Amino acid sequence: MTQEQRGGRAAQAAERRAAILEAAREVIAERGYRGTSLAAVAERVGLTQPGLLHYFPSKEHLLVAVLEARDRWDTAAFLAGPSDSWRLSHLEQLVEYNAMRPGVVQTFTALVGESVTGGHPAREYFVERYAHARARLADLLRAEFGDRLAGGRTPEQVAPLLIAVLDGLQTQWLLDPAVDMSAAFRDFVALLGPADDTAASPRS
Amino acid sequence: MTQEQRGGRAAQAAERRAAILEAAREVIAERGYRGTSLAAVAERVGLTQPGLLHYFPSKEHLLVAVLEARDRWDTAAFLAGPSDSWRLSHLEQLVEYNAMRPGVVQTFTALVGESVTGGHPAREYFVERYAHARARLADLLRAEFGDRLAGGRTPEQVAPLLIAVLDGLQTQWLLDPAVDMSAAFRDFVALLGPADDTAASPRS
Repeated sequence: MTQEQRGGRAAQAAERRAAILEAAREVIAERGYRGTSLAAVAERVGLTQPGLLHYFPSKEHLLVAVLEARDRWDTAAFLAGPSDSWRLSHLEQLVEYNAMRPGVVQTFTALVGESVTGGHPAREYFVERYAHARARLADLLRAEFGDRLAGGRTPEQVAPLLIAVLDGLQTQWLLDPAVDMSAAFRDFVALLGPADDTAASPRS
Repeated sequence: MTQEQRGGRAAQAAERRAAILEAAREVIAERGYRGTSLAAVAERVGLTQPGLLHYFPSKEHLLVAVLEARDRWDTAAFLAGPSDSWRLSHLEQLVEYNAMRPGVVQTFTALVGESVTGGHPAREYFVERYAHARARLADLLRAEFGDRLAGGRTPEQVAPLLIAVLDGLQTQWLLDPAVDMSAAFRDFVALLGPADDTAASPRS
């Protein structure tokens, strides 16, 4: 095989992978986590199931790849530029957008729940994703509030809380759509800023 | 069958159920969510698997019953008395205790993740649990801080955030034990109080 042929095959494989991820995204949006099977994705993209397994060896591998692609897309769409130019308002937009795509949010929540159990194939992806997110969101909080937030806390102390709120609100919203994720996230942001005397109510 | 015999059988069944739940709690603590099978629990309590299925028709039913028993026990141990006497310091103790029992925390996280997917048998339990928790924790926040917390937010606005933080920190800790749930939860509590001028740092 010539170098040109190898390059052509690699490009073809990358194209096929992208088409599979797009089909998986559609099936997840339509049928949710539980209704998404390798068979349904293979059919959508015109492959046999063994053909699909050549690209993604299990449902978990495919779903992790869908979530990775979402991370890249979301970062480009909502968090463009160097991370010290990210703002909490961008995250608020991302939460509003997530409220319009329950299928992929459900997939994230179900997969991260599975991944905390022993030896799950998605565990490494989530461990790295959370470590990365804590570091980037600490940068975001520092750019927004400086070195001290409410209660004298540092950006590094608040970043895990910010991520916990994002994750935990998704769970509550998926179980009860009356929970307003966007409004609740703005309530959390309101807790973070430097103290506002007019908002403080005496304890007695 | 006499009334006395029926009463005796009911008591026996309740005792057997309690023994199964205790065995399940032990197996979960030793082997985690993924390693807990109906067969292992049946063996521990000296039943056949069909005998166990008579009391709990599926693994999900058994795990929900374990989580319900934990809720009752935790409420009695950490949140005794009427809910307006609960304090955030009791919740801080509960978080410290959870950091010593990863098996059941893992089971909770995995099961709630599954339950957000369509038609899961544990969904109803979690929907009710979260609605109840939001109401009770709003009472707790009102008893602690009055009608206005930091940022002018109400107890009802902050209660879903408090639950989200508890859930989300568990996920991060299960994936990376270096995340200190107890310290992070205290950081969250520090954000909630009425504004403290000495802690506020100007933005510029």
